[in-house]
Amino acid sequence: MRVSELVDSYEYIGYQSVELQRASDVIVKMKKDSAKVFLTFTSNMITSGLRGFFAQLIELGVADVIVTTVGGLEEDIMKATGESFQIGSFQTDDVELHEQGINRVGNILVRNESYMNFENFITDILSDLYDKQKRWVVSDMLKEIGLLLNDPHSVLYQAAKNNVPVFCPAITDGAFGFHLYLFQQKHPDFIVDVVKDFGNILFATSFDDRKGVIALGGSISKHHAILSTLLNGGAEYAVYMTTAHRTSGSMSGANTNEAKSWGKVKDDSDVATVIGDVSITFPLAMIRALDELAEDGLLRTTAQE
Amino acid sequence: MRVSELVDSYEYIGYQSVELQRASDVIVKMKKDSAKVFLTFTSNMITSGLRGFFAQLIELGVADVIVTTVGGLEEDIMKATGESFQIGSFQTDDVELHEQGINRVGNILVRNESYMNFENFITDILSDLYDKQKRWVVSDMLKEIGLLLNDPHSVLYQAAKNNVPVFCPAITDGAFGFHLYLFQQKHPDFIVDVVKDFGNILFATSFDDRKGVIALGGSISKHHAILSTLLNGGAEYAVYMTTAHRTSGSMSGANTNEAKSWGKVKDDSDVATVIGDVSITFPLAMIRALDELAEDGLLRTTAQE
Amino acid sequence: MRVSELVDSYEYIGYQSVELQRASDVIVKMKKDSAKVFLTFTSNMITSGLRGFFAQLIELGVADVIVTTVGGLEEDIMKATGESFQIGSFQTDDVELHEQGINRVGNILVRNESYMNFENFITDILSDLYDKQKRWVVSDMLKEIGLLLNDPHSVLYQAAKNNVPVFCPAITDGAFGFHLYLFQQKHPDFIVDVVKDFGNILFATSFDDRKGVIALGGSISKHHAILSTLLNGGAEYAVYMTTAHRTSGSMSGANTNEAKSWGKVKDDSDVATVIGDVSITFPLAMIRALDELAEDGLLRTTAQE
Amino acid sequence: MRVSELVDSYEYIGYQSVELQRASDVIVKMKKDSAKVFLTFTSNMITSGLRGFFAQLIELGVADVIVTTVGGLEEDIMKATGESFQIGSFQTDDVELHEQGINRVGNILVRNESYMNFENFITDILSDLYDKQKRWVVSDMLKEIGLLLNDPHSVLYQAAKNNVPVFCPAITDGAFGFHLYLFQQKHPDFIVDVVKDFGNILFATSFDDRKGVIALGGSISKHHAILSTLLNGGAEYAVYMTTAHRTSGSMSGANTNEAKSWGKVKDDSDVATVIGDVSITFPLAMIRALDELAEDGLLRTTAQE
Repeated sequence: MRVSELVDSYEYIGYQSVELQRASDVIVKMKKDSAKVFLTFTSNMITSGLRGFFAQLIELGVADVIVTTVGGLEEDIMKATGESFQIGSFQTDDVELHEQGINRVGNILVRNESYMNFENFITDILSDLYDKQKRWVVSDMLKEIGLLLNDPHSVLYQAAKNNVPVFCPAITDGAFGFHLYLFQQKHPDFIVDVVKDFGNILFATSFDDRKGVIALGGSISKHHAILSTLLNGGAEYAVYMTTAHRTSGSMSGANTNEAKSWGKVKDDSDVATVIGDVSITFPLAMIRALDELAEDGLLRTTAQE
Repeated sequence: MRVSELVDSYEYIGYQSVELQRASDVIVKMKKDSAKVFLTFTSNMITSGLRGFFAQLIELGVADVIVTTVGGLEEDIMKATGESFQIGSFQTDDVELHEQGINRVGNILVRNESYMNFENFITDILSDLYDKQKRWVVSDMLKEIGLLLNDPHSVLYQAAKNNVPVFCPAITDGAFGFHLYLFQQKHPDFIVDVVKDFGNILFATSFDDRKGVIALGGSISKHHAILSTLLNGGAEYAVYMTTAHRTSGSMSGANTNEAKSWGKVKDDSDVATVIGDVSITFPLAMIRALDELAEDGLLRTTAQE
Repeated sequence: MRVSELVDSYEYIGYQSVELQRASDVIVKMKKDSAKVFLTFTSNMITSGLRGFFAQLIELGVADVIVTTVGGLEEDIMKATGESFQIGSFQTDDVELHEQGINRVGNILVRNESYMNFENFITDILSDLYDKQKRWVVSDMLKEIGLLLNDPHSVLYQAAKNNVPVFCPAITDGAFGFHLYLFQQKHPDFIVDVVKDFGNILFATSFDDRKGVIALGGSISKHHAILSTLLNGGAEYAVYMTTAHRTSGSMSGANTNEAKSWGKVKDDSDVATVIGDVSITFPLAMIRALDELAEDGLLRTTAQE
Repeated sequence: MRVSELVDSYEYIGYQSVELQRASDVIVKMKKDSAKVFLTFTSNMITSGLRGFFAQLIELGVADVIVTTVGGLEEDIMKATGESFQIGSFQTDDVELHEQGINRVGNILVRNESYMNFENFITDILSDLYDKQKRWVVSDMLKEIGLLLNDPHSVLYQAAKNNVPVFCPAITDGAFGFHLYLFQQKHPDFIVDVVKDFGNILFATSFDDRKGVIALGGSISKHHAILSTLLNGGAEYAVYMTTAHRTSGSMSGANTNEAKSWGKVKDDSDVATVIGDVSITFPLAMIRALDELAEDGLLRTTAQE
């Protein structure tokens, strides 16, 4: 059985399977309607094997804007420079892992060495960037880094190559922030301009553009994208995929209905909220959407050449 | 029955009640051990009635460092300048709310007017700040704002008054960011320095300090605090309160065991993870802790004078 | 601070705290309105320290009908005959526990010995019951057992003593079922009549009675009570406390709104659904309700004499 | 892309996708090892479109024992007699639905008529059964009903036809119970023997059989199956798929590790727990398993002839 057939059949099963099929459909619609698409995800999704899939989606022209958090970008760089993570278990002896220099993210294991190698890489890059100019807007900095990576499975690389801006509103919240800090200590005139990037995400789409949001997980990645659509009149299409529930009033659990009260998505928008682990649900919904978009010639074809 | 008695009895009930009693105990221990305490919370908790409680905790000397997201700070300012939010329902007609100019956060309602009044307030402040200097570190800027608020129930006010730094690694992810952007458009030399603040949170405690983390909800607030403790040798005490589960590999759901693998908390640290809505669990755990700390004279007494 | 004051303050906090205060209020209202109250809970709540609290509520006249599952009743008997359970941890070596003859229910530990002692106790009782009559309706059998227990902290004892019927629609789903089976092997004319009990729960209240449901957790305990209210015209009051969410379409997560579509609760009923661990939320809501009911003289006073 | 390829790729993604791939693998292993397979599910899964899939699995010889709750069996009968349910929305006006005679289960809608037609059907059957004998064991009764249904998409029909016993420990917890009660009122010597069925599930497998459990959702369906494996020495294989978490100590959330402490699954068993909506996760895991089992000729082939 093909994945698309399975997702099609979900329409008739009930509960979250129905929402998943609907999500897949909304993704197809936003692309067919030439909406500008914001794809947002949390760091742990880059930690996972979804990283290469995200890179592929950018290559295929599915996403116009990326918003994420810095931990994922660090790991995108680590993987692009040869590091690999292992699948472990949720149930482990964390003290023993710590003694072995292994860090756990759910059931994924990241070695300390990966962070050390990242340090070497990023320190050199910061010097090069500084030589070019003293004041850097975050998304520009990320594009420069992306162009250096030369790994087709890298999010930053594909984004840079395909002129898809990557926004990261909390650029200092990770090892990257630490290295920015150390560098600035030596070069006090080195400035990371986060304010300018607010304009950049705002003007990445316009009031007149149709807009779509695919928000995977919650956190500021999700919020920053829908804040941007709000200021531009609201999104016509929105797909939220998350494990969080509306009951706690968190951004992560806020569903697409709540977004309507804010004007983050339009009153008559096409929306779907899927509760479930993104590592399972997103590939399902997206693979079916890709099948349909490929049939209609709506994917960037240079990718396959 | 007193709250403290109820929480004491939780020790013998089972499931999350046991964890809640343990969390309360860990809070008492971190204070008795003179640990530096990081208190982190997500924006929606400031949206809720917990705001005044947080302010009180700062006043009482319970927290040494605050980490949060910008949405909450905006709402702290709104409330300090006279706005109030209403309790609504999770189940509403969001299109109708939108037409009425009402924004929903779970079952709490925020009027558009509150945002407009915030705009007036913040625009004036930015001018004043700019007149003083062109380059602002985020936590310094938040302290200046706090001193202007003059509302004892305000988190920013109490933090400023009591020299408790407030860190906000994603300062642009909200209406505040929009106004920073508009201001910078007119004043291109206006710079918000997020990098310098990485050093400030790092040096807010030292490697030799005993450290405690009280993380309410997930997101970068939680991550930024434990990243800081990680770089300073790990926390001796950690309490996580959240509705997220470890199963999705998210930062929000990462428990105190996972933190040990990273060295975010020490191998032999006192830790507790409580799964549940913070609006219920935190007041419970904290009120009992305050009772015990008051008995031992460990609360700042000027608050009550 | 008193528990009642804390719960009162929840009305103004937001998210689930608001729902908890509402739940407490609905409980007060159902009692003031002289509604017949169904109290339902899952087995793991009897495993926990809530058992004595349930017994006390029955003694105080708060509940008119109990519905639960058989595992909890077995443990009620174990505890009444001297067994006690230990608080452990969610994170343990379960193979080691198994070798030690210890069974885990979340973070509560039950020894194999407790089950063996239960076996001796129940085997004798079944003989006695059989001597009286060959065909037993479940709730009658549970009343007989309750009268033998003589433990004021026992649910079965207090229910029996106060003429509160205990319904257990899946009486064979536990060690009890095994012993019933062994006994029936020797006495083929021994019959447990579950069908008759359907009538008993139906006639425990009438169409004209006002009815209230307090459902803790999900499962058939919850379903059986609201099925009964449905057949009697629907409940006027309903409080659901659970960790399950509506998103999976399960009975455990079905909220009080969904119940309205079925007529399980009336269209204009007073309802509240609280998402959270019952070990934390129920004592909170109930202690405040008891305070108010005591003031109004609505608790059975012989309990305190 | 084929479903099997997607599930294979899950092994390298992380979080719950890894667990899902593992679950699929455990299912394959239990079949290859000729284990007796218990398949358990909650009522709402029969309400959903999974019903036909379950029937197909029985036809293919995947399941040796079925355990479920009565609501699902009622709906299996309704669908077999021509009723169909509609997909609706989680967010609806439930009072309006009630007025229209429509009952909601999550986002699935069931008309009152379906229940009325069920009434007519079941009343006739009970008369026929009573004419044959006065005392009925539940699983025997369900087999008789199954043989009458003549719908290849019916769980009861396929189970009856393929000699797969269906156990339902709480047979009275639904409309079925009501009709059993009404019938017994007219025929007091009509007896439904639940005790005898305890022996039947116990002897459906033996101590020497290898045993596997596929538990979808929680509740007594899950518990009854693993109680049975416990009494027969424990299962060698177990797959739990649920939305519930271990943190509340509920049976629904109890994972396969906890089961080891009880001996419900063996210490060295092959186990997997997948957190997520069964309507999405089970078809994924099972379709891949079926592909592999078909290749190895381990599916009953008469089904396809």
